Amino acid sequence: MKNDSSVFGIIGMGTMGRNLLLNMADHGFNVSGLDKDESKITLLRKEAGSLPVKGFSAVQDFINSLQTPRAIMMLVPAGKIVDEVIQELTPLLSKGDLIIDGGNSHFSDTNRRVEELKDKGLHFFGMGISGGEEGARRGPSMMPGGDQKAYEVVRPIFEAVAAKVKGDPCVTYVGPGASGHFVKMVHNGIEYGIMQLIAEAYEFMKRGLKLSDEKIHATFKKWNEGRLQSFLIEITRDIFTFKEPGVDHLLVNDIKDEARSKGTGKWTSQIAMDLQAPLTVIDTAVSMRDLSKYKALRTKAAELYKKNTTEITSQESLVDALESALYFSTIISYAQGMHLLSLASKEFKYDLKMDSIAQIWRGGCIIRSSFLQDIFDAYQNDPSLPHLLIDNSIQTKVSSLIPATREVVSLAIKSGIAIPGFTAAISYFDSFTSERMPSNLIQAQRDYFGAHTYERIGKEGVFHTQWIVK
Amino acid sequence: MKNDSSVFGIIGMGTMGRNLLLNMADHGFNVSGLDKDESKITLLRKEAGSLPVKGFSAVQDFINSLQTPRAIMMLVPAGKIVDEVIQELTPLLSKGDLIIDGGNSHFSDTNRRVEELKDKGLHFFGMGISGGEEGARRGPSMMPGGDQKAYEVVRPIFEAVAAKVKGDPCVTYVGPGASGHFVKMVHNGIEYGIMQLIAEAYEFMKRGLKLSDEKIHATFKKWNEGRLQSFLIEITRDIFTFKEPGVDHLLVNDIKDEARSKGTGKWTSQIAMDLQAPLTVIDTAVSMRDLSKYKALRTKAAELYKKNTTEITSQESLVDALESALYFSTIISYAQGMHLLSLASKEFKYDLKMDSIAQIWRGGCIIRSSFLQDIFDAYQNDPSLPHLLIDNSIQTKVSSLIPATREVVSLAIKSGIAIPGFTAAISYFDSFTSERMPSNLIQAQRDYFGAHTYERIGKEGVFHTQWIVK
Repeated sequence: MKNDSSVFGIIGMGTMGRNLLLNMADHGFNVSGLDKDESKITLLRKEAGSLPVKGFSAVQDFINSLQTPRAIMMLVPAGKIVDEVIQELTPLLSKGDLIIDGGNSHFSDTNRRVEELKDKGLHFFGMGISGGEEGARRGPSMMPGGDQKAYEVVRPIFEAVAAKVKGDPCVTYVGPGASGHFVKMVHNGIEYGIMQLIAEAYEFMKRGLKLSDEKIHATFKKWNEGRLQSFLIEITRDIFTFKEPGVDHLLVNDIKDEARSKGTGKWTSQIAMDLQAPLTVIDTAVSMRDLSKYKALRTKAAELYKKNTTEITSQESLVDALESALYFSTIISYAQGMHLLSLASKEFKYDLKMDSIAQIWRGGCIIRSSFLQDIFDAYQNDPSLPHLLIDNSIQTKVSSLIPATREVVSLAIKSGIAIPGFTAAISYFDSFTSERMPSNLIQAQRDYFGAHTYERIGKEGVFHTQWIVK
Repeated sequence: MKNDSSVFGIIGMGTMGRNLLLNMADHGFNVSGLDKDESKITLLRKEAGSLPVKGFSAVQDFINSLQTPRAIMMLVPAGKIVDEVIQELTPLLSKGDLIIDGGNSHFSDTNRRVEELKDKGLHFFGMGISGGEEGARRGPSMMPGGDQKAYEVVRPIFEAVAAKVKGDPCVTYVGPGASGHFVKMVHNGIEYGIMQLIAEAYEFMKRGLKLSDEKIHATFKKWNEGRLQSFLIEITRDIFTFKEPGVDHLLVNDIKDEARSKGTGKWTSQIAMDLQAPLTVIDTAVSMRDLSKYKALRTKAAELYKKNTTEITSQESLVDALESALYFSTIISYAQGMHLLSLASKEFKYDLKMDSIAQIWRGGCIIRSSFLQDIFDAYQNDPSLPHLLIDNSIQTKVSSLIPATREVVSLAIKSGIAIPGFTAAISYFDSFTSERMPSNLIQAQRDYFGAHTYERIGKEGVFHTQWIVK
């Protein structure tokens, strides 16, 4: 083997792939990049300068450049292309080599691929990477799942390039099988939830409190200096300063209100329903992205239903209440996501270390925030904590936020300002803290019309009643 | 062929199967029932008396008793058993015979079975049947989907046994492929939504207004005599009178508050997310059934979070407002379900006649209600109506309900009474009637961290911005 063999290779030299490769080279690793598009390789070489980066457009040359066991990451769009790349690669690889899918593949596809490649003696890792292009270049959060021993081959590289928080790298071995992609999927689900909540806070300020863009910017700026400090609030603050050259208003005002999505939020909601994990904030975020697309219908409906509601009298104290409500609702979005992870860990035998997941999400990723330290502390304190809301320290924080949240949400409902994520959060909280729910009536109804039986308080067994007295 | 050949056969002589068979015999049809459990056949013979019903426990005898082309319905639990029964049947059948799956199979399974049996020259129908045991006996609502010509064989039988409204039978040919099961699945999704809403109205009366069981009963009774008239309100009224012999309180109070489900609500929410149909009330109903199962967690949370909220001062006017809010939220549940059906009709080429579906749901089924006449009228008026809320007549009704709905929901939020279905309904309405949603911010965020691009108002194309000024 030549001395200058690469220790890591990436397939797919889009911005993410190039940035991650350059990040590795920055840390002194010899690395190789592959893309069939020559122009991407030219760009890679230009960006790499004197860094130890090799670019290839022929697969065999790329493979030959890697030391064994080979560690190869794909950064290609999820779906059929992943299978095509695997098919092209496998005949060229040797037993013990490691293929990593760094994209947002559905975890069920990853499960299938793990099995298919196991038969060929190859290790397959699903790895979530969060942080966008900037994160890839400067330090992402990474969630690798697969064979624990095989992980040791790439561990030094991943730990070097990952974001650091208090000296700890934002990467860890997550668990077996598709657990890495599952954890990343839930990360993205939480991200959908928080983005929806921030958009609703904007809606409440703009349409409810009639605040100017300048005031909205100042508010996000202030919030980012307090307990809401997070990457998403930070970029929102920046978005509310951005004007195009020669334009006198914010660019955000020129953007169409039709949100797109790539599916990870939807997948999170769908699998949560299979696992019976109530995920109301994320479900709402998914629904609202969908609803945003029906622009023509909404325009027609807005004409038909003239709003006839109480105006909100703008007060400084309401902005503070809104901050509490946003903090509260964000906590619920995290708590629901973590609950899903706990349940999935049992169902799929991932044996997730909940504190480690919080730890690697504290930096580098899109949902990084001050509050992730609280989540980390809660799971450190009790590794088998069944739900974040019953941690004592979080309970204290949450309790203090409730009155302001109720004020904001009830005002919004009265005023016709749509904040469905906020309302889902407080409604979930009120149900979650109900020792008794009205579900006994649902059981009675099901037994009445479908003889589905019911259970009784204080009595074992299942019962059926002939409810109609004939 | 013998003169006394049966014109229809049912496999699975549970209560549903026996009742449907007896219903057919009541209308003068010679019919056959099959069950490997002899005791069920004995029961069938006893219940049938002198009616033209034959019972069998041997498959070949059952098959021999049927005239050709044979029409055979399975009423067996969804899942593997359906495939097993089909496998046992097919070698005994002839080309042109018709197998009907009358259970709640997932529509994707039905699609697969249609294809498998087509190769064998057999017709396969997925048929939703709603109405429970009583409906099967006295007149259910039926939703058959499959080959239109093959349907003619069974049409006279189905039209005879179905419930009738204004002389019209509550059965019609729904569409090709798995459309029958799809429509039934959405029916059940709407049913989940309405049941959750009724349970929340009960919660608001009991815990919010502190009404007695007698007063709650009187309220449901009164509601059922007005615009809320429906099967589900009617049975709820009955449930609030039912006491066991010698017991001085209502049975419903002894039932555990942990709701079960068989999956159709969940399937509705999951496929709605694939089709980008926002279905927030049904999603919430599914989540709340799930949440009800975490009894130990809820009990712990109820202890930790002592409610510290405004008490509601009970007033008669609030009961009226609640009626409006329930009517409004129920309309939203129907509207979301019908929206999903419209979208599925296009996506899967079902070519659903929306007015016919409303027509066959007016009687016999679990979600039958006065309001289904309004839905029927709306789609008769405009067969391609894209959304119920933009029908003029429904708009007038809905508009009048908004103030009371806002009052009830904001009061519940202030008071910590969990009515998540109601809040989802009004939040959906407020978003749906927003000509402009805050989703432009979500697009800006996505472009900021992931270069996902955005669209602009008044300009063609997609755009990307380097949001961070370096």
